[in-house]
Amino acid sequence: MHATETFARYATEFRQARLDDEVLHHAKRAVIDWHAALFPGLDVAPMPQLRALLADDIGRGRARLPDGRPVPARAAALLNGAAAHAAEVDDSFRDAMYHPGAATVAAALAIAQERGASGLDFLRGVVLGYEVSTRIGVAMGRAHYRYWHNTGTVGTFGAAASAAGLLGLHGASFAHALATAATFAAGLQQAFRMDSMSKPLHAGRAAEGGVLAAQLAAQGVTGSLDVLDGEAGFGRAMSDGPDWSAVGDTLGRDFHIKRLTFKNHIGCGHTFAAIDGALELARRHGLRAADIRRVHVATYGPALDIACYEDPRTENEARFSMRFVVATALVHGSVRLAAYTPERLADADVRAMMARITAVVDPEIDAAFPGRRSARVEIETTDGQRHAWLQPDRKGDPELPLSDAELDDKFLELAAPVIGAERARALLRNIWSLDKADGLQGLTA
Amino acid sequence: MHATETFARYATEFRQARLDDEVLHHAKRAVIDWHAALFPGLDVAPMPQLRALLADDIGRGRARLPDGRPVPARAAALLNGAAAHAAEVDDSFRDAMYHPGAATVAAALAIAQERGASGLDFLRGVVLGYEVSTRIGVAMGRAHYRYWHNTGTVGTFGAAASAAGLLGLHGASFAHALATAATFAAGLQQAFRMDSMSKPLHAGRAAEGGVLAAQLAAQGVTGSLDVLDGEAGFGRAMSDGPDWSAVGDTLGRDFHIKRLTFKNHIGCGHTFAAIDGALELARRHGLRAADIRRVHVATYGPALDIACYEDPRTENEARFSMRFVVATALVHGSVRLAAYTPERLADADVRAMMARITAVVDPEIDAAFPGRRSARVEIETTDGQRHAWLQPDRKGDPELPLSDAELDDKFLELAAPVIGAERARALLRNIWSLDKADGLQGLTA
Repeated sequence: MHATETFARYATEFRQARLDDEVLHHAKRAVIDWHAALFPGLDVAPMPQLRALLADDIGRGRARLPDGRPVPARAAALLNGAAAHAAEVDDSFRDAMYHPGAATVAAALAIAQERGASGLDFLRGVVLGYEVSTRIGVAMGRAHYRYWHNTGTVGTFGAAASAAGLLGLHGASFAHALATAATFAAGLQQAFRMDSMSKPLHAGRAAEGGVLAAQLAAQGVTGSLDVLDGEAGFGRAMSDGPDWSAVGDTLGRDFHIKRLTFKNHIGCGHTFAAIDGALELARRHGLRAADIRRVHVATYGPALDIACYEDPRTENEARFSMRFVVATALVHGSVRLAAYTPERLADADVRAMMARITAVVDPEIDAAFPGRRSARVEIETTDGQRHAWLQPDRKGDPELPLSDAELDDKFLELAAPVIGAERARALLRNIWSLDKADGLQGLTA
Repeated sequence: MHATETFARYATEFRQARLDDEVLHHAKRAVIDWHAALFPGLDVAPMPQLRALLADDIGRGRARLPDGRPVPARAAALLNGAAAHAAEVDDSFRDAMYHPGAATVAAALAIAQERGASGLDFLRGVVLGYEVSTRIGVAMGRAHYRYWHNTGTVGTFGAAASAAGLLGLHGASFAHALATAATFAAGLQQAFRMDSMSKPLHAGRAAEGGVLAAQLAAQGVTGSLDVLDGEAGFGRAMSDGPDWSAVGDTLGRDFHIKRLTFKNHIGCGHTFAAIDGALELARRHGLRAADIRRVHVATYGPALDIACYEDPRTENEARFSMRFVVATALVHGSVRLAAYTPERLADADVRAMMARITAVVDPEIDAAFPGRRSARVEIETTDGQRHAWLQPDRKGDPELPLSDAELDDKFLELAAPVIGAERARALLRNIWSLDKADGLQGLTA
């Protein structure tokens, strides 16, 4: 049985299965966190440009933009998928090195709105997309992550699986949706190792490509069912020939959606263990910026490959600068939206702190990646003391999760400045009761 | 200078350069051959399904479907790009293992129609797309072709470069169009090693992705200019780290568009040297099917990797079956549209001939790939004679080109059954005089 068929068999079973309350709860958390990421992303480049380009599509169709304007499903997926990744605050599934929400929820929402689906059906589509795509991401492994941006590549499967579920596809047609998605999957890491606007587009294209793949399958369009595991397939072309034999073994038993990481800071998640460690040391020892002579960060390799900007000049580069975010944490106490304003980019205190920070790869920490995202932080004070802290996980990781209340606070902090506090609170209530909602009207203005 | 910038510098020069008559002549030949491939593809799967899916887009916009119906540019690119690759009769640029026309001409046409461009501007867009994308394909080399379908991947650059040229982009904005295109590029070989409808979608997605990349660049959206040559870029992720240093050296001097291969048969071009060789032996020795005991084909490796179906059961599989097409040539004398009808798929004479055919890789012929596409054919007759023939090139290759008259004949044979002989002749006249046309009205009904 090809991997596409393994997932298709599960999609067939999933139609009949009752979602248990805990899975449903986590699906709502994912939808809340997706919206928390969406709103601050709406005006980050390239979103205004993308909306200008799609102006002809806005105003027609049955899916919706966050402000309630109608739009066709594929355009909604492209726009909402990109926006949800643009502010770099969307969820992660750590073992797949992947932000599953951006494309998956965007695609599920677009098709659910187009079909007039219930809240529960929408949540089920989300769960299906997470369960399928995270498993593909895990199978592809670290070799895939060397060159590829999983949020673009693996995200295409999240979108396709969600959309296919909501279109009522199962069995062979579900498998064909995944097969077509596989050969649409794209997104290079190099696209964000230089300052550029590409990264959110990966999530948008993944959402749109996945929706198209599912819509094509619904029209009877076939793909190659061996496209994941075949000799010239996704696994060999884009990784080191992963083993697909066990890819579906825990489907329906171990729900990955229960083990998401929600970001507690804003920026590249690979920097968060270092931020948490630095904040922990400052708290424990009562350190102010002026007390710090030297900071040394030791973490896993990809963190430094990706959060690589030594001297960031733009908001984008700053989000991917280990030195900038750790310095910001130590100087200002948090790394949220305010961290990336032009004033902060030029902040002399942050720049002075950056000059005191070094970062290296720690082989032991690196060996535990991607299952663990750790950092060891050492601070030497101006009076010659040395303090060290191993931060084994990030606040927001499954081992150290945001509580529901913390998630609500994060959502309100990020949504309220964009849509107002009242609408943000109403939206939050509506998401928490989605499983009781006949439709999705409660999600838009 | 990054490769994207090398091409961007050329795009700036190209705006001022006068196209010489020979280049213009070859551009028209490419547009004729693109239309010859387009018409028989219009109703091959997945085209009817794709049109059904895009029904909401058909009837609005300023680009055109071949029947004249209006459609937005990106939808036109998707539909026309896929259609032009669906019947497997589109052009090739051999050194890049790539069908440049399908996506490139579709994208150029869509943007030219949207902008109300002149015939000459459209042809210039086509030339720019061919020159840029074929060079990227050559640079990516044989390692890329192991897993990737160049018509999907490299085709994205053909579409982006054409569209960017027609949108008036040059310098940095042209480079950003290519950079964004790079991270949209997709299409796996495995997607057509099993019977599926994916292959034409690769060309369609390439055309649509390239148009989107160019439109985004026109809106000011940036990509990573090092995305081709960087550590985690297109070259390393999707090939063996090609050398980009000389990628632009012959731009503006050696026009690749003058060295296209136009198919003289219908099906996978990797089988054509074998078909030509078999037909040549039959002609020289007056052989009928009944005279043939055994046929042995020796050719280059990728031909047998791709034209791999031993026992084809569908039209798609038959196009990619070395044994089927060689048997068809020997039994019926040609491999054109009629070769793939249900009657022919079940033809007992063809099946009997297939059983007498073997095919292997010849190391010497393989070593000359992709620059040469040769096959050695040996036929043993029922009376014990043995005849052998080395077919060094394919009829239609630059060394053995279709004359203008042969190209016209091919076009009329393929177009007339779809649009009628009169309209086909008028269209042909209009393409030959495109450089004098104020607009592109002469290309559609």
